[in-house]
Amino acid sequence: MLPYKVIACFCLLLSCYLADGQEKGRSPGKEVVQLGRVRLTVELDGEGAPVYAVNFGDRAVVLPSRMGFVLKEDSLFYRGFGWKGVDRRSVDESWKPVWGEVATIRNRYEELTVHLSKEGAAGGRLLDIVFRVFEDGVGFRYFFPGQPGLKYFVVEDERTQLAMAGDHKTFWIPGDYDTNEYLYTTSALSQVDNSAMVAASTDIAVRVAPDRQSVQTPLMMKTADGLYLNIHEAALVGYPAMQLHVDRKSFVLSSALVPDAVGNKAYLHAPFATPWRTVIVSDKAADILASKMILNLNEPSAIVSTDWIHPMKFVGVWWEMQTGKSTWAYSDSPDSLPLVPNGRHGANTANVKRYIDFAAANHLGGVLVEGWNVGWEDWFGNWKEKVFDFVTPYPDFDIREVSAYAAVKGVQMIMHSETSGSATNYERQMDTAFRYMTAWGYHSVKTGYVGKIIPRGEHHDGQWMVDHYIRVAEKAARYGVMLDAHEPVRPTGLQRTWPNWMACEAGRGNEYNAFSNGSPPEHETILPFTRLMGGPMDYTPGIFKLRNYTGVPGRQMHSTLARQLALYVVFYSPLQMAADLPENYAAHMDAFQFIKDVPVDWDDTKILEAEPGDYLTIARKGKGSADWYMGAITDERERTVSVVLSFLDRGKKYKAVVYKDAANADWKDNPEAYAIESLTVDSRSKLNFRLAPGGGAAVSITPF
Amino acid sequence: MLPYKVIACFCLLLSCYLADGQEKGRSPGKEVVQLGRVRLTVELDGEGAPVYAVNFGDRAVVLPSRMGFVLKEDSLFYRGFGWKGVDRRSVDESWKPVWGEVATIRNRYEELTVHLSKEGAAGGRLLDIVFRVFEDGVGFRYFFPGQPGLKYFVVEDERTQLAMAGDHKTFWIPGDYDTNEYLYTTSALSQVDNSAMVAASTDIAVRVAPDRQSVQTPLMMKTADGLYLNIHEAALVGYPAMQLHVDRKSFVLSSALVPDAVGNKAYLHAPFATPWRTVIVSDKAADILASKMILNLNEPSAIVSTDWIHPMKFVGVWWEMQTGKSTWAYSDSPDSLPLVPNGRHGANTANVKRYIDFAAANHLGGVLVEGWNVGWEDWFGNWKEKVFDFVTPYPDFDIREVSAYAAVKGVQMIMHSETSGSATNYERQMDTAFRYMTAWGYHSVKTGYVGKIIPRGEHHDGQWMVDHYIRVAEKAARYGVMLDAHEPVRPTGLQRTWPNWMACEAGRGNEYNAFSNGSPPEHETILPFTRLMGGPMDYTPGIFKLRNYTGVPGRQMHSTLARQLALYVVFYSPLQMAADLPENYAAHMDAFQFIKDVPVDWDDTKILEAEPGDYLTIARKGKGSADWYMGAITDERERTVSVVLSFLDRGKKYKAVVYKDAANADWKDNPEAYAIESLTVDSRSKLNFRLAPGGGAAVSITPF
Repeated sequence: MLPYKVIACFCLLLSCYLADGQEKGRSPGKEVVQLGRVRLTVELDGEGAPVYAVNFGDRAVVLPSRMGFVLKEDSLFYRGFGWKGVDRRSVDESWKPVWGEVATIRNRYEELTVHLSKEGAAGGRLLDIVFRVFEDGVGFRYFFPGQPGLKYFVVEDERTQLAMAGDHKTFWIPGDYDTNEYLYTTSALSQVDNSAMVAASTDIAVRVAPDRQSVQTPLMMKTADGLYLNIHEAALVGYPAMQLHVDRKSFVLSSALVPDAVGNKAYLHAPFATPWRTVIVSDKAADILASKMILNLNEPSAIVSTDWIHPMKFVGVWWEMQTGKSTWAYSDSPDSLPLVPNGRHGANTANVKRYIDFAAANHLGGVLVEGWNVGWEDWFGNWKEKVFDFVTPYPDFDIREVSAYAAVKGVQMIMHSETSGSATNYERQMDTAFRYMTAWGYHSVKTGYVGKIIPRGEHHDGQWMVDHYIRVAEKAARYGVMLDAHEPVRPTGLQRTWPNWMACEAGRGNEYNAFSNGSPPEHETILPFTRLMGGPMDYTPGIFKLRNYTGVPGRQMHSTLARQLALYVVFYSPLQMAADLPENYAAHMDAFQFIKDVPVDWDDTKILEAEPGDYLTIARKGKGSADWYMGAITDERERTVSVVLSFLDRGKKYKAVVYKDAANADWKDNPEAYAIESLTVDSRSKLNFRLAPGGGAAVSITPF
Repeated sequence: MLPYKVIACFCLLLSCYLADGQEKGRSPGKEVVQLGRVRLTVELDGEGAPVYAVNFGDRAVVLPSRMGFVLKEDSLFYRGFGWKGVDRRSVDESWKPVWGEVATIRNRYEELTVHLSKEGAAGGRLLDIVFRVFEDGVGFRYFFPGQPGLKYFVVEDERTQLAMAGDHKTFWIPGDYDTNEYLYTTSALSQVDNSAMVAASTDIAVRVAPDRQSVQTPLMMKTADGLYLNIHEAALVGYPAMQLHVDRKSFVLSSALVPDAVGNKAYLHAPFATPWRTVIVSDKAADILASKMILNLNEPSAIVSTDWIHPMKFVGVWWEMQTGKSTWAYSDSPDSLPLVPNGRHGANTANVKRYIDFAAANHLGGVLVEGWNVGWEDWFGNWKEKVFDFVTPYPDFDIREVSAYAAVKGVQMIMHSETSGSATNYERQMDTAFRYMTAWGYHSVKTGYVGKIIPRGEHHDGQWMVDHYIRVAEKAARYGVMLDAHEPVRPTGLQRTWPNWMACEAGRGNEYNAFSNGSPPEHETILPFTRLMGGPMDYTPGIFKLRNYTGVPGRQMHSTLARQLALYVVFYSPLQMAADLPENYAAHMDAFQFIKDVPVDWDDTKILEAEPGDYLTIARKGKGSADWYMGAITDERERTVSVVLSFLDRGKKYKAVVYKDAANADWKDNPEAYAIESLTVDSRSKLNFRLAPGGGAAVSITPF
């Protein structure tokens, strides 16, 4: 049999060779690609290592940096390459997202594919690197072509370098394999050391950050000469999340992939394309937020018919558990049979109906109910495989009654499926769970991954779990269900491919202000430049009772009330929770009007002002509407916003309602003081308003 | 909240204390339990370590040996115990297995429960050790009572010792985490070193045996003074398999649990009972085989209605792939789309019908078809998660036509679900797979686990997979499906609890004679004393074409034809394959008559002669029948069997048909020479027949 195979193999190689000769320009040297002010250069260095660099005008963004891999099959798969040739392509197209910040997205780039080859087993090995140069940065990915010498292979390390040109100011969280729920540190690259933050963050359940110089992406930086840089990845599929190891002396960032249970990084099968590594760059911070590069680098929707996918606002039986008013668990005693009710269970039918009533009365689309299903008595912290079955309600939650009531009221129920990190258990039950929820009329699900992952030894951000989240999104799509994943890997623009995957948590959300000491005001001015670069966050804004909402002395929101409104504009998400209790909204229905009005889907977005860690002012135009909404927030410093409404239609008169901090408002001492002002504006109007320390403002602008 | 909890805790402890005082005899010293010649002693040594010993008459079986654990929560959970008291119980009962070697099983034992306690956190910790002394040995298990100080906990090591009294002759295979498919080595304990065997066994796909002095159980030993010892475990549920580390100087065997992906052994939640550790002892080898201790130590059937569970014989599209005549895969090229047929695919409709015809004509119950479903082109060896979907037939396998044809012919189709070790993938699809098979009328499934396990880092014999196999058995029961698991952990009598889990492979089966150099004749004289002690093995006997069945020069079965018949009696299984091709049976239909006749379920069993590694002669009486069947095999040495048929009803005349090696038969040079002789016998008759080297004989005895 052997001779036959050898001949076949030889023929295959021969045909490859001929195809190459016909189709690809052979180039021995350096390739340069430029679009606007962004310039990419790629070459092989003297050791046959691929090296790239990125410039923005005359300023270096990425100094010459090496690329490649350590494979189990080839521990030097980062040098010794030969240059086979390149392909080039120019693309300028536009596409319409199913939902989002803008109605239409332009995708314009210059593409360079470098074909490399290496001597070795089975006729050598091939590696392509595909670069796309945009006006706002560069994305690149590795592509392993189908080839006889590299079929199944194991990635022990990715050796992608991003050599920074200086000791940039950096907004970072630790490179943790299991969580993104840290506070941000702002420091020079040379000062990156996550160990103290990891040790101190005892409010995060599971923390695994073995490399103290590793940081999470999206990583936001600002250079001394005024460039804004953002490094992340796009289209994370079939591969672990990339973190960045910081060399504090050379300022070289190196890819650090999240390992699996046995220490490998990825199991690949050629042909395979890695996620894109992205560098967004501008001399304006606003351009970073406006960039659509990450979405553009993702694949189009895998879902053919998307008309069942609807952005919405929702309320939920949730904040009352976060604040300790009620409990997820039905009983305080996990071992009692039958369960002995504790009398403080939030997800009881009567209470849920109260939320349904509130949602219906205020035209909010959905109601989330956590703690509805059996298992919460003993759900967390024991690395226990079988916790929830996802389909058994507590005795006081009558799903038939709740579903019927919601249907009559025109409200969508949102299922909650907490896995406690036991992904194997969830996968076993997933079909059953989706059948159950859709049978009861639930077409949205919030998943959760609190705890150490099972399969044991896997991490939230490793390849196995990355695949898992996508399996869930795909399964949800099959059942016509929208997905909001809590505690998953941070998003990488996959909402383009899976538009039913509406939002993720994967960051430090508002609930930290309830169960822990929370986050300082600057946190929310950093999130858009970091976590939100990958996709929408279910941050759960809208808290109106800002003090004395828990029994913990001194605990309070790091926010004014007006700022809570601003977050609905500042943080884009197609799912936005009005997170506070109905009774707390009832005390401020004039302010609540903004939450009722604000859309969750937009035709246009203007980043009016932005500085990471300091402030943000954003205006958005409602989908299919002439209405505009503005949100502005500041950090712990007071600030005056002064914005010309030039984005409005010229000559048209609008009514602006400004929800702003009262003159004496302050996040610390007087957070609930707000003022509402109506005025008439047009495209020449200048709006001025003060943001209190930790404050914000929200504006609705509707044509007369 | 804290004071309330402390009070509750104190009350709980108080009530425990009172209950102890009332119910348990306090004993400071040594406990002795005896039944027949088996005597157990248990005491605490000077360090507060529990120590037990077992004697058989005046001979030491287990010298004083320590017990306990290294827990993550208590690294010294093997000493420092206090003696709280004991409970004793005598049991003499009998029960009827759903199927088996005998109609009724007597379960007679003396039980001693030792209650131990230890100072420590949360009011101390509790450990019970439950001993059962049978006439043929001792079983013991650890029980962790529900207790405040030990709720969820992690077993880092079990410290169970079995101190042997001498350098016994031992029949062992390596303690491998992933396979039992080794040849047996016969050596003194002092000579145990598995490294050469592990290295040489390249015919076994996945081998992980890091401890060269570790051996698998069931472990069979023979002492210099003529005792036969067998060490295994019973009721392996929620816990990893136990292997034994051999101290070659002291002859102390120590429990060595198979680790999980992160090196832990077990995640437990009190109350929890470990599997039973079993020591079977007799001065007669036959008593070891006749022992029902392991079944008795398992729980009764978890399946209430068992009338759908039917032992059966079956043929299959299988040996032709093992021998290279046809292929599992439909195509030789995994990447072609559509698949290009290779013309040698075994599981095509026409070929399958040929097997159905053969089964129907010969009243064999079932037909197994391997290679029927898409995925075999690229199924193995790449630690690949998604291989099979378990429900997609190849284009040339018309499941509708096959199922209809089998139904008309009165033959049961047996589903084949190979997982390639990707248990996560199988669990995801399991409901779909069971729905599919039962919809097409399949009520049996053969599963397979060839390859490294996914979840990666887990092992075939670790806690996660032990749980997995039981999940499959339970799922199968829910769908009314009988299970035959290949490459699972070795059985531990769980067929009592899950009587639909008919058989396992978990050993070196007959197919090694096809795809590798096979197993010498003594292998089959050791298996009943080792692998089969835990439960039925799907060994796939019945090969009639003993030479030139593959294209490999010199390859042949290590067996005569008559011996292949004997295996149906010698190896008990409720599922027995007639593994050879229909055309090979057609050449010897006179011998095939025995396979047609021999039952797979029995009312009685007599172990007439037995010596591990040398020979076996067993007689069995058919279920609900007056017919007896005998099987005798020898190792590579010629042997004369001489048996008085005293088990027959006195005064009754029977027709005996003896299928024996021809006078000139020999496994090596003349394997297919057999003779069939009919004679009239009664309970005083003595049957004499010669077993050729590597030979055997089978006898059917039916009343006139």
